[in-house]
Amino acid sequence: TTGAPDPTSAWLGRYRGGVAWHSPLQFNAHPLCMVLGMVFLQGDAVVGQGRKGTKCSGGDGLFSAGIIAVFESHQTKGIPDMYSLHSWCGMATFVLYLLQWFLGCSFFLFPGASFLLRGWYKPQHIFFGITLFILSITSCLLGITEMLLFKLSDSYSHFVPEGILANTLGVLLVAFGLVVGYVLTREEWKRPPLAEELALSMDFKTLTEGESPGGGSQ
Amino acid sequence: TTGAPDPTSAWLGRYRGGVAWHSPLQFNAHPLCMVLGMVFLQGDAVVGQGRKGTKCSGGDGLFSAGIIAVFESHQTKGIPDMYSLHSWCGMATFVLYLLQWFLGCSFFLFPGASFLLRGWYKPQHIFFGITLFILSITSCLLGITEMLLFKLSDSYSHFVPEGILANTLGVLLVAFGLVVGYVLTREEWKRPPLAEELALSMDFKTLTEGESPGGGSQ
Repeated sequence: TTGAPDPTSAWLGRYRGGVAWHSPLQFNAHPLCMVLGMVFLQGDAVVGQGRKGTKCSGGDGLFSAGIIAVFESHQTKGIPDMYSLHSWCGMATFVLYLLQWFLGCSFFLFPGASFLLRGWYKPQHIFFGITLFILSITSCLLGITEMLLFKLSDSYSHFVPEGILANTLGVLLVAFGLVVGYVLTREEWKRPPLAEELALSMDFKTLTEGESPGGGSQ
Repeated sequence: TTGAPDPTSAWLGRYRGGVAWHSPLQFNAHPLCMVLGMVFLQGDAVVGQGRKGTKCSGGDGLFSAGIIAVFESHQTKGIPDMYSLHSWCGMATFVLYLLQWFLGCSFFLFPGASFLLRGWYKPQHIFFGITLFILSITSCLLGITEMLLFKLSDSYSHFVPEGILANTLGVLLVAFGLVVGYVLTREEWKRPPLAEELALSMDFKTLTEGESPGGGSQ
């Protein structure tokens, strides 16, 4: 557990005893799953911009496992839930993520949604996707801060290696967010539309509101 | 100090003894100046999109005062500086803000910069402006978390009113960021270009790289 390739597992492995489910180390599954599942795989999905159709991935599983880990660990240790700003932001991120997923399915997979309705919803979906990604990173930084203040307390202010490593993890998360955000907002880097999307957008011009993609006739 | 209109001064006034410079209360000037100067006035400047030409404002003064407040207060109390993730993010925000300001002056006020150079720089300036605004809010949330864990410690987990109020301040900062971000990214809400900007953008089409706005002839 010492030569871990990413700073999250390096931190948890080297300084926090590693990760194990249904053990005193279950809590450590929370930061690991959130950083990998919520931030990195979500970042990958956001940059993919629907290249894979829907964006369900291993990230959703890790995301859920990370949330279960913290609630189960709190219950075992008798720690109250949902009192901190970290928990409020994290829970808001999770609820908005579910909402985004539900609305995304409704508008893009449900055949009854009209082209105009989809055209109206798409920029909202993109805006809230980027918002969720930023909120995820913010929640991680809040969690890192909480964990360091709880576990290191006074030694944090003496620049102990664990504090520097975990701070660096936070800075890397911000840098990852910056790179993803920059790639997303550069017009010239957008992938060209697929043949079927091009056909759809050409059809779109002749369609009137309320018509469904299923029905081709007036 | 009890009927303060904004949640930051309500928090500091009601629970933290208020704000005073060169006193044990000097630290409290830090959160107050950062929330008002860095987040709210910067948000206002970002939405203004250069409507006022340059964006120097009272926000810059509050921003600087807030940073001086925390370093002076740490020195008085013998608390180390720059060890926490909050301080790293906050300092990164400040340094990037200075860089953004310096580059903004160089590209937009210095008469030697060509139209093409300005045209290339403008989207970078917008991207980093939004990034700085998000980083500012993130730094505030990290600071709120730190302050609550230091000052409330155990009682934070018992849902004391001060914890709920400060968490709510954090949520309001996120909501403010969401509204500003949404307004900024809606194409249809962009202000129409001013007459002189329109003239510039028409000239732009016929200009070649390297030519300065000052010189009209080939």
